[in-house]
Amino acid sequence: MKPLRIAIAGLGTVGGGVVKTLQSRGGELSARAGRAIEIVCVSARNKNKKRHAHIDGIPWTDDPVSLAQAECDVVVELIGGADGSALALTEASLAAGKHVVTANKAMLAEHGAELAMLAEKNNAALKCEAAVAGGIPIVKALRESFIAHGVHAVRGILNGTCNYILTQMEATGRSFEDVLAEAQRLGFAEADPELDVGGGDTAHKLALLSSLAFETKPNLAHITVEGIAYITPEDIGFAREFGCRIKLLGVARLTPHGLDQRVGPAMVKLGTPLADVEGAFNAVVADVGAAGPFFFEGRGAGEAPTTSAVIADLVDIARGRFGPAFGVAATSLRDLARAPEESRRSIFYLRFEVLDEPGVLAEIARKLADHGVSIESMIQRGRAPGEPVAIVMMTHDTPAPAVARALKAVAASDKVLGRPCMIPVEAG
Amino acid sequence: MKPLRIAIAGLGTVGGGVVKTLQSRGGELSARAGRAIEIVCVSARNKNKKRHAHIDGIPWTDDPVSLAQAECDVVVELIGGADGSALALTEASLAAGKHVVTANKAMLAEHGAELAMLAEKNNAALKCEAAVAGGIPIVKALRESFIAHGVHAVRGILNGTCNYILTQMEATGRSFEDVLAEAQRLGFAEADPELDVGGGDTAHKLALLSSLAFETKPNLAHITVEGIAYITPEDIGFAREFGCRIKLLGVARLTPHGLDQRVGPAMVKLGTPLADVEGAFNAVVADVGAAGPFFFEGRGAGEAPTTSAVIADLVDIARGRFGPAFGVAATSLRDLARAPEESRRSIFYLRFEVLDEPGVLAEIARKLADHGVSIESMIQRGRAPGEPVAIVMMTHDTPAPAVARALKAVAASDKVLGRPCMIPVEAG
Repeated sequence: MKPLRIAIAGLGTVGGGVVKTLQSRGGELSARAGRAIEIVCVSARNKNKKRHAHIDGIPWTDDPVSLAQAECDVVVELIGGADGSALALTEASLAAGKHVVTANKAMLAEHGAELAMLAEKNNAALKCEAAVAGGIPIVKALRESFIAHGVHAVRGILNGTCNYILTQMEATGRSFEDVLAEAQRLGFAEADPELDVGGGDTAHKLALLSSLAFETKPNLAHITVEGIAYITPEDIGFAREFGCRIKLLGVARLTPHGLDQRVGPAMVKLGTPLADVEGAFNAVVADVGAAGPFFFEGRGAGEAPTTSAVIADLVDIARGRFGPAFGVAATSLRDLARAPEESRRSIFYLRFEVLDEPGVLAEIARKLADHGVSIESMIQRGRAPGEPVAIVMMTHDTPAPAVARALKAVAASDKVLGRPCMIPVEAG
Repeated sequence: MKPLRIAIAGLGTVGGGVVKTLQSRGGELSARAGRAIEIVCVSARNKNKKRHAHIDGIPWTDDPVSLAQAECDVVVELIGGADGSALALTEASLAAGKHVVTANKAMLAEHGAELAMLAEKNNAALKCEAAVAGGIPIVKALRESFIAHGVHAVRGILNGTCNYILTQMEATGRSFEDVLAEAQRLGFAEADPELDVGGGDTAHKLALLSSLAFETKPNLAHITVEGIAYITPEDIGFAREFGCRIKLLGVARLTPHGLDQRVGPAMVKLGTPLADVEGAFNAVVADVGAAGPFFFEGRGAGEAPTTSAVIADLVDIARGRFGPAFGVAATSLRDLARAPEESRRSIFYLRFEVLDEPGVLAEIARKLADHGVSIESMIQRGRAPGEPVAIVMMTHDTPAPAVARALKAVAASDKVLGRPCMIPVEAG
């Protein structure tokens, strides 16, 4: 059988890993693919950069978008960014009937439905295992495996940087800022960390998981997004006292009123699978009616896991194992309504920084009650009259908007310092 | 597109679940499959048995093997058993160029290489997601996802009955026999439990995982198999004191000297993923070089999980997403050598029942030392002179045959009662 000819745009960590792996394990991969996989052209920003991968014998172009016209079967897009040359290359490649393998969650979260449509119109594959959770084959599982009973909810730890920071904060008791700065020094966090710690990266990935699980168009605009910057070591300590751990989760849940998608810190009960996910690992839980839950854990980023996902996509294409990008025909992807805020209810962890004066607790309790928020348990400690102290509570199961309104009312008190914090308890 | 026409042999829990799901979720499944999936014929032992699934309108045959000649694209083999009509039907169907979907681990463990060859010769798919770990898509993951870096080891909890029994023994302190009898009353264990509790079912599944992971022919004869019947509540208690839990694991490991495959009780450190798998759940860990480890957990048996796996295979076939049964061409499946016993080394838990007389411990310690087995820690308790007591130990890392020889020597002592017990510590 003829070799599968591929062109690679982007030779960073992942692109370099793909080149190296195809070169070093060509025999094994040919056996899996049923034919050789041959790199026919590569493109990257700087040809002369020092790389671990050997690209000397491979044709080179400075113009990544021109790879769409290369003599190849598959274009591997590893440029990144929702728009720009990544999008131009992907569109041009699909339009030319070439298969595309990409790790670009931002692009697919923004333009996934249109790109899937373009792929189908041209009988081309659009594959993106590397876009979510690195080497964990969760894209494939949602697209091809968890289909008989319908997925009800999917939730996961999808950003290794955030999970690393939260794990370190718990292990060392240090602040978010401290741990982030160290992670940046060690190369575990980007110089501009906002996309990670602000939750945006998790939102990109959640949009794709939702699309695969619920047959809906990826829709970033329907995701409520919060980051982890406001989490304090005290929150992490209190979480422990309530038998929980704080994780940045992406959660998508089908409700009778639409799709509820949220990215943000969550309290996860100790002893549940997601609570035990440490460091830069990723994990996903899929609730699949009587068939589930299923739990997957593995490395979510880095050269080897992401390379593993890209190569699996290439081998699938070599074998002819592909169908619609998001599991069903792009034309039948739904525009699921966004579930109203009122439909999101759970137990909430609340933290208030207050002046330790008589009557503070009574005032907070009254305002919470006024908004229909009732308290299940409470911790108050460290009495030093006149100094700020933390009051933390777990509510009963309550709609999120009621809690938000109650917190706004509490925050208006001059005995309450700063912005109160609310974190939902999520299934782990 | 034309419907995918399927014939189903066997209408037990899984067959009935497949019929029900195709009937109740036909629309959703057509969207995933790109076409309708139509049941054109069914066969089972007794037509008039009361069933949850409605089969009134579906053509029936009493002769399952005749389904190989039915006007259909896929035969779903849910009869069970390594040979007999399951094998006859599978062979005849593949020979007739029909795709086969099966949940039959015994048949594939015994005849997998030949059947894969037959499937390829006739351009037919042979799919078996339901054969291992129920709804967990581990067959697909090993066949299609974990291929870039090569799997080094795969280990898992593959038998829900055994895991349920061990979990209950720990929770209640009751004996293996007691818990098994209760499980049988509750329908969680078969009337003849030997295939489950003896480790044979786990061995069937491990043979398939090995084949998928290591590109080797399934080879039951190369698997060392032990069951859980000799595990006592005391072992479970002592395991806890050593920071471990006892699980029935299937473990396959590529060594420089061949493939090491073992089914048997293992000590797994508390806090590792496999240690936390409770009740009838299944789980698999795959070590995949720098890309791994990956951990999957989910329901390993029962109607919904197994139906989920069968339907996923059918949808793959409907979409044309299939390749060789074990990931590489059947002609290139290897005959990997069996790793010699000497290559299997680990820390071992040892238990001796002894008469509590002076010098017993000294005698045991000397015999262990004579065979090169050194002790890392020991527990001895319950001194009642003249009565039997348990002495338990953890060894240093030691080759398994040395430990076995030492135990044989110890067992020869007239102060040692019954057969000493050895359980390896395995990574979880």
